[in-house]
Amino acid sequence: MRRVALVAAGVTQFGVRKAGLKDLIWEAGKAVFGSNSRVRPKDVEGLVVGTVMPERTANQSHIASLAAECLGIKPQRLSARTEHMCASGSVAIRYAHSFIASGLADLILVLGVEKLNLPNMDEALFNMGAGVDRDWEACYGLTAPPCFALAAQMHMTKYGTTEEQLALVSVKNHNHAKKNPYAHFQKGVEIDQVLCSKIIATPLRLYMCSPITDGAAAIILASEERAKDLTDKPVYILGSGQVVEGFSLASLHPDYSHWPPIKKAAGDAYAMAGVTPEKIDVAEVHDCFSIAEIIAYEELGFCEKGEGGEFVARGFSDYGCKVVVNPRGGLIGCGHPLGATGVAQAAE
Amino acid sequence: MRRVALVAAGVTQFGVRKAGLKDLIWEAGKAVFGSNSRVRPKDVEGLVVGTVMPERTANQSHIASLAAECLGIKPQRLSARTEHMCASGSVAIRYAHSFIASGLADLILVLGVEKLNLPNMDEALFNMGAGVDRDWEACYGLTAPPCFALAAQMHMTKYGTTEEQLALVSVKNHNHAKKNPYAHFQKGVEIDQVLCSKIIATPLRLYMCSPITDGAAAIILASEERAKDLTDKPVYILGSGQVVEGFSLASLHPDYSHWPPIKKAAGDAYAMAGVTPEKIDVAEVHDCFSIAEIIAYEELGFCEKGEGGEFVARGFSDYGCKVVVNPRGGLIGCGHPLGATGVAQAAE
Repeated sequence: MRRVALVAAGVTQFGVRKAGLKDLIWEAGKAVFGSNSRVRPKDVEGLVVGTVMPERTANQSHIASLAAECLGIKPQRLSARTEHMCASGSVAIRYAHSFIASGLADLILVLGVEKLNLPNMDEALFNMGAGVDRDWEACYGLTAPPCFALAAQMHMTKYGTTEEQLALVSVKNHNHAKKNPYAHFQKGVEIDQVLCSKIIATPLRLYMCSPITDGAAAIILASEERAKDLTDKPVYILGSGQVVEGFSLASLHPDYSHWPPIKKAAGDAYAMAGVTPEKIDVAEVHDCFSIAEIIAYEELGFCEKGEGGEFVARGFSDYGCKVVVNPRGGLIGCGHPLGATGVAQAAE
Repeated sequence: MRRVALVAAGVTQFGVRKAGLKDLIWEAGKAVFGSNSRVRPKDVEGLVVGTVMPERTANQSHIASLAAECLGIKPQRLSARTEHMCASGSVAIRYAHSFIASGLADLILVLGVEKLNLPNMDEALFNMGAGVDRDWEACYGLTAPPCFALAAQMHMTKYGTTEEQLALVSVKNHNHAKKNPYAHFQKGVEIDQVLCSKIIATPLRLYMCSPITDGAAAIILASEERAKDLTDKPVYILGSGQVVEGFSLASLHPDYSHWPPIKKAAGDAYAMAGVTPEKIDVAEVHDCFSIAEIIAYEELGFCEKGEGGEFVARGFSDYGCKVVVNPRGGLIGCGHPLGATGVAQAAE
């Protein structure tokens, strides 16, 4: 298996954008080709696009070809759009990685993009249920917030995690976002603002949730041989893991505060990279809701099970301590344009 | 790069089905696990699903996880949905292939599925425009049939290709479909039926077009080491190619009867496999419209440019001659459930 490196990265402004799908793609292309790398559009051999629902938001499929045209590239080896709900961008990276690792190509652009805000916000909200089983669960009103609220309730009951600890994830991430000019929110928040914001699904309040955000991000991956010519600072992908154990709420681990697939996937990535959790300095984790970041600390091995609330409360996930988690501002502060999120995390 | 083999395959009944998306997935799983291979669901390490627009037809994203649950598998290494309009299934196979070839996994199930027929057929027809640039072309009424009709018009003008030759592609493929119990159409057609069927986009008539079909297909790919234990007849993937050079009609080769990306992609696949077009005995090609099969003969190197009409008229693409093209019945006879098509072709 060949080594693969990230050689260029760029992101668009995240937020409630007037830009459409194509505008966002174009902006991400401008950002990545305008970055410090020496990659030119005509060198790109492949394109993988992570995006969840352009079929709903723009009545459009055939996204990889559309993106290639927007970006002015003509992929001669690989072209694909990937979807895996909130992991769509990360899955796109994994496709490009395996394609280069196997020797099938040397230089692939990975784009993540999502346009979620629509003139008709009722439709935009209906669309957000596309990640939940439409036939069996979404039809009864289940959406993402109550799923994560169940995890939070269980975590509070079993481990004594507090509302304040949940709020501190939001405070940290909003304060990180303040330093990120591309973030959806750049004002920061105080703990009282979080604790007094309206309830979305008990115990999750507005500021403990990621917003509905438009945005795009792009990175370029290269084989080791090519990487050296393209940038002075190639960032190598040392490990990767992915595990799926269920879909419907009914199929998940009976203890909602346990997320075994994260532990297994992280274990695979650590083993492949030959590192242990203690070695990690920076982590971009999926804080779609603040409870998700707390459980991530635990499943990724940054602390023991049940100690995630304490971990954030003691500042262990902020600068100058154990591991800086979500320096971009996370999904809570930076926003969560579904397909763009994983690529923006890699870009960071 | 490791060698990769197909070790199991299965398809569902294609047609206008009452079955929904999940039913089709389940049927394909039953077919592939019930085939002659020794693969069990619990052995499967990864799942890649090719599908174009469940967001529109079932208001559903997060398709790979949904499919894993339907199939009773828990992917511990890879999970993804791929979309590339009519190539979605083939792209899914390429992802699984590169993942195994690179050494990241040994056993991956590839599923293709599409539920296109809806109670509201106006909506079903609107959805078919999702492959065309919605903002710049579909909004003016452009859909797939006129795009391919332009190619047919140019081919007739430049090379003297006739309506009869276009019709003979349909006759051959419908007659092949007659022997395929899973095909959408199983009655066969005579040339007069094709030439007297209604005009869809001049010169393409109804029987020269693939229908709106529901269906699913599944194959299992394995590394060479595993393949030997799982089947007595592993089918190795020797080569593969993919090229994208445009999206909007305006971006394509100015001579619509020339499709250079097919020629380049085929050239890559031939080179990788170390074969020449003359060595090919069987070909599954994309006859979404009969002109597409004629141009495929030429771009794949089965005959010279401009001789595709003559090639089918002389029976060169039927049994007992140069190369059997579309023995399943092709998209015209078997049907074209977008994401399922590429996987069903590989299954054949």
